[in-house]
Amino acid sequence: MTPETERPTTVQDVADWWGTAVSRIEPGVIELRGRPVQELIGSAGLADMIWLLLRGDMPQPHERSLLEAALVAGVDHGPHAPSIAAARMAVTCGVDLNSAIAVGVSMLGDVHGGAGQQCVELLDEIGRHRRDGRRLEEAVELTLASWRAHSRYVPGFGHRFHPVDPRREPLLSLVADAVGRGELTGEFLDAAVAVETALNRGRTRPIPMNIDGATAVIYAELGFAAPLARGLFVLGRSIGILAHAWEESGQGRRNKGPMPPGILPTRLTS
Amino acid sequence: MTPETERPTTVQDVADWWGTAVSRIEPGVIELRGRPVQELIGSAGLADMIWLLLRGDMPQPHERSLLEAALVAGVDHGPHAPSIAAARMAVTCGVDLNSAIAVGVSMLGDVHGGAGQQCVELLDEIGRHRRDGRRLEEAVELTLASWRAHSRYVPGFGHRFHPVDPRREPLLSLVADAVGRGELTGEFLDAAVAVETALNRGRTRPIPMNIDGATAVIYAELGFAAPLARGLFVLGRSIGILAHAWEESGQGRRNKGPMPPGILPTRLTS
Amino acid sequence: MTPETERPTTVQDVADWWGTAVSRIEPGVIELRGRPVQELIGSAGLADMIWLLLRGDMPQPHERSLLEAALVAGVDHGPHAPSIAAARMAVTCGVDLNSAIAVGVSMLGDVHGGAGQQCVELLDEIGRHRRDGRRLEEAVELTLASWRAHSRYVPGFGHRFHPVDPRREPLLSLVADAVGRGELTGEFLDAAVAVETALNRGRTRPIPMNIDGATAVIYAELGFAAPLARGLFVLGRSIGILAHAWEESGQGRRNKGPMPPGILPTRLTS
Amino acid sequence: MTPETERPTTVQDVADWWGTAVSRIEPGVIELRGRPVQELIGSAGLADMIWLLLRGDMPQPHERSLLEAALVAGVDHGPHAPSIAAARMAVTCGVDLNSAIAVGVSMLGDVHGGAGQQCVELLDEIGRHRRDGRRLEEAVELTLASWRAHSRYVPGFGHRFHPVDPRREPLLSLVADAVGRGELTGEFLDAAVAVETALNRGRTRPIPMNIDGATAVIYAELGFAAPLARGLFVLGRSIGILAHAWEESGQGRRNKGPMPPGILPTRLTS
Repeated sequence: MTPETERPTTVQDVADWWGTAVSRIEPGVIELRGRPVQELIGSAGLADMIWLLLRGDMPQPHERSLLEAALVAGVDHGPHAPSIAAARMAVTCGVDLNSAIAVGVSMLGDVHGGAGQQCVELLDEIGRHRRDGRRLEEAVELTLASWRAHSRYVPGFGHRFHPVDPRREPLLSLVADAVGRGELTGEFLDAAVAVETALNRGRTRPIPMNIDGATAVIYAELGFAAPLARGLFVLGRSIGILAHAWEESGQGRRNKGPMPPGILPTRLTS
Repeated sequence: MTPETERPTTVQDVADWWGTAVSRIEPGVIELRGRPVQELIGSAGLADMIWLLLRGDMPQPHERSLLEAALVAGVDHGPHAPSIAAARMAVTCGVDLNSAIAVGVSMLGDVHGGAGQQCVELLDEIGRHRRDGRRLEEAVELTLASWRAHSRYVPGFGHRFHPVDPRREPLLSLVADAVGRGELTGEFLDAAVAVETALNRGRTRPIPMNIDGATAVIYAELGFAAPLARGLFVLGRSIGILAHAWEESGQGRRNKGPMPPGILPTRLTS
Repeated sequence: MTPETERPTTVQDVADWWGTAVSRIEPGVIELRGRPVQELIGSAGLADMIWLLLRGDMPQPHERSLLEAALVAGVDHGPHAPSIAAARMAVTCGVDLNSAIAVGVSMLGDVHGGAGQQCVELLDEIGRHRRDGRRLEEAVELTLASWRAHSRYVPGFGHRFHPVDPRREPLLSLVADAVGRGELTGEFLDAAVAVETALNRGRTRPIPMNIDGATAVIYAELGFAAPLARGLFVLGRSIGILAHAWEESGQGRRNKGPMPPGILPTRLTS
Repeated sequence: MTPETERPTTVQDVADWWGTAVSRIEPGVIELRGRPVQELIGSAGLADMIWLLLRGDMPQPHERSLLEAALVAGVDHGPHAPSIAAARMAVTCGVDLNSAIAVGVSMLGDVHGGAGQQCVELLDEIGRHRRDGRRLEEAVELTLASWRAHSRYVPGFGHRFHPVDPRREPLLSLVADAVGRGELTGEFLDAAVAVETALNRGRTRPIPMNIDGATAVIYAELGFAAPLARGLFVLGRSIGILAHAWEESGQGRRNKGPMPPGILPTRLTS
């Protein structure tokens, strides 16, 4: 009996419990969003597959290339990134590459990999104010005020490491080009640039848009929901995680900690 | 002091501890295998980046397209795949997409995602016998005998679900075409087909090459080490994991278990 | 140079970066919160160690026994729990027990394992209203109103499966006994019971306090911060996760999906 | 239809698919190995529950105290341990404590947390030789020879950090006491000490038994299968992982990498 209905559970209930529109897998059949896998192998690229599985159809050329650019931009940020460092440590502990990647991906939380997601939310909030009839500057001020009421950080802007993020310019240029060709509205590009302008007004040390901000512009322009900004970042960053884990596995260390064993952690007293 | 040398540890030791050839990240600089990221954004695809980060240079066109085909082939196998089912369950537990993907990727162990890795090892073993002067059939028999001494399963062959794996044919055709154009030696394709022939001799119900076998042929022909067959499979499967997790997150279930709550697990006695 | 200060980074900076008061590990020395491990082995129990490492000193007897009771209560909830099901699936994929446990623990997100954490927050909110001079009923009403403004669920109350949660009564009795002996104030017990009363006013089908609510009472009475309610639940549930993963590993399945392979997931159309 | 049998799958098949002897969870009922949870709450400790769920009955007092001592010994090894460092990094990335613990636990692979498992296997191998009539020294030599044929390391002996592991002596003393009282046979204690003697013959710098070796003796004497040596270590180490993650979460760092940001990883050229 199901507790809710008193109706006996059936095999059909089990089939429904796992119902999906993403793929159809039956003996001898593999269809992805209605397309036989054998037609996709050799014709579709990875970015096509990402779009197809998430959106249900194949991307237009500009959609595919912008998505791919955003993913490429985030593949790696070296051993200072916790996602990379943890994966390198993992392989020295005797786990396989899938576990090392899982460890790296697990680190992409609200602070490390979630800023893109939050930045799409912020851009969406500006968009709602504009649809309510606000001017852009006003919409930005209202949004920044509400954001700052609950966080010290404006997601997608500023970097602890790069004074200027070298990924900002090429990503925004690609978006501007697509806007120029009429392929995108440019609404989210304008909003993000306006946020950057507002943040830097009167400052000597600038707070430039970072990778999370620039890719959030792309994801928002392409119509991806905010949580997918994080999900997509995971797909790109996994490439760098794999490459670092693989390099580390060839260096022969065992149980690699975060620093050489000769350094003893400072003893805190509280 | 480092325990081994009695020499005081220096900041240079710490820098060396995290040394890498994959990327160079300095304030304002992001280089991946020596290439500035701003040159890659907009020109390189995901398959290019995978090759670049793992191999150190850009792939040839046939290398890129074969790698991409192998990755596309493995993106999804529906809710029966533990990697997919676990990720769908994860999002209903209130974790973010990065955690759901990590859970799915964690499942790609020796049995679920590791068969490709083992199949590359098997094909490599056949290759060693051939370089020792054995004929192909002999090399296959020796390899199968040694493999069966420690496992009931020949990795890369047979499927509990598909009588014929629809991914086998298109993948092997792409390899055969590249061999025909002189881009690959075909050594590993021949070895895998010879294994399939040997396994099916005298059988009525065939044991066909599966996705792990067909992609292992590609990875081996492209010169990837065996552990990377698993690592690469993770990259492709992550796409399907993300798509399923995202679909599930829109269905509103909370704490989704493996079956409707009306079914009670059978009580076992010991 | 550190970007912030222009002062060269030193080895002492690295030692400080990893500074900790939890343990002191030096060649030949292992101290946990200032106590040599050799004094703890054989004298301290697991609940003592949990308290010691989190709080910095050893627990009083009633603190230890209440903590242990709360942990024991949550060890297992069978294969319907995603944490248990996913770990069972994991071992059939060829990963080791540590990976299977990690998979299970990963599932304990805001919805599955986080309700205890949220319930401590809710009880803390009631406490703040009381310290502002509100009567208990008033404090409960204000808190429930603010909680319902952002969530359909009141954490710690109601169960999709159990009409009455068999863990509620013994846990609350232990708290009531300790209050009777003057060991606890009972403030959080009173608050939780008042919430239960408010929720059930005028209902025919009751919404009883569940395991998350009853253990939240204990953790709050013992002075644990809200996030530790989740952390502690993880420690207890890991025991059940390990036991189920171990049982499954003896049953010989490979790549166990969520249902027998003869059931095909329903095809959805969106 | 199930592919294997052509018989239609039934709801009973689904119930059997998830059958378990560990627990019985039905509306209003929670039984763990046949014992109602309400009888265990307040009377059973964590070590009791571990034993009960894994073994099916309650431990004898000496079994409980030895198991608890082994678990206590491994709770923490400071930030040099990858399991601890990774969990500390994880919380600064904006994930919850369950994810931080999962990350730490994931690191306990064949090298980091698996040595205890391998040491139980090694002690079991010595036991098989003895049951074949070999003397202890002979059994040890045969076992060490076969082990060294496939590994540079003898699991459970030697430590990169501690010249003498302070956990060895108290753990072995507890075992010796139990042997003296006739509670254990001492077979595995003798074997491990004989291995230590053999390893140190003729050496000036000793290779002492470490925590993995000393706990392997306990687990083997108590009759746990080798894989559970790793599973049990996970349970104990999770306590330290939680304590470190919690401490780190109070220190306010964001995206903590393995070293201060002023240190740039050395550029490697291969």
